Amino acid sequence: MGIHVIAEFLGVDPEKISKVERVREILDRVVAKSGLHCVSSSFHQFEPYGVSAVYLLCESHLSVHTWPEYEYVALDIFTCGDEGSALKAFDLMLEEFQPKIYNKQVIWRNLYERSGVPNSLRLSRVEEKRLGTS
Amino acid sequence: MGIHVIAEFLGVDPEKISKVERVREILDRVVAKSGLHCVSSSFHQFEPYGVSAVYLLCESHLSVHTWPEYEYVALDIFTCGDEGSALKAFDLMLEEFQPKIYNKQVIWRNLYERSGVPNSLRLSRVEEKRLGTS
Repeated sequence: MGIHVIAEFLGVDPEKISKVERVREILDRVVAKSGLHCVSSSFHQFEPYGVSAVYLLCESHLSVHTWPEYEYVALDIFTCGDEGSALKAFDLMLEEFQPKIYNKQVIWRNLYERSGVPNSLRLSRVEEKRLGTS
Repeated sequence: MGIHVIAEFLGVDPEKISKVERVREILDRVVAKSGLHCVSSSFHQFEPYGVSAVYLLCESHLSVHTWPEYEYVALDIFTCGDEGSALKAFDLMLEEFQPKIYNKQVIWRNLYERSGVPNSLRLSRVEEKRLGTS
């Protein structure tokens, strides 16, 4: 049915993730470059800093929540159909936010396909990496 | 940092999940009863049927994507802070949509807390159930 990339970034420059304007620029770029189709986007500015952003896509959704005080971003990319776009969007997020550590979990949302074959579970794949030197 | 409930429902009455109006009523009720705080909500009507809905919450977000032709719903509830609201929202979704089969995966989005303690991973918990007699 779909692929869901669930990720956390740590060690992200707080300047990039404090205000809606900057986050919107980044996400608009990611959505456009990854070939996803935006239906609408919503943002919330936390005070004094911190952003929530949700993009409703033709392909499902993309969301980002930021905690600049922890240099932390939680992100989700859920797409139905072609899984390439979700993985490309994730790679673009990595390029844009440049975290020092991240984890990425890929979940196949395929209960429909699996419902007739209960022993063929292909639920998720997890990876966690430290990048750079600090 | 937060708790993310990722679930799939199968065997849902297609009448409930075909049109935005009905899904909006259900989700507005779920959000209100679970004590979550809606910042904004966005909907997309697929033709001839099928709905995507994303609620941006003070607590993070809630999303639902429906495939009435498969009697299928993919849902996400991500909340920071108190995990009770997310779990309550999930239980309310279960009551409202009454699937015949569901799976539910709870992911703790806690890379920040875990980053100093790499051996204390508490990544996710999965359950899958068949309900009723279909």
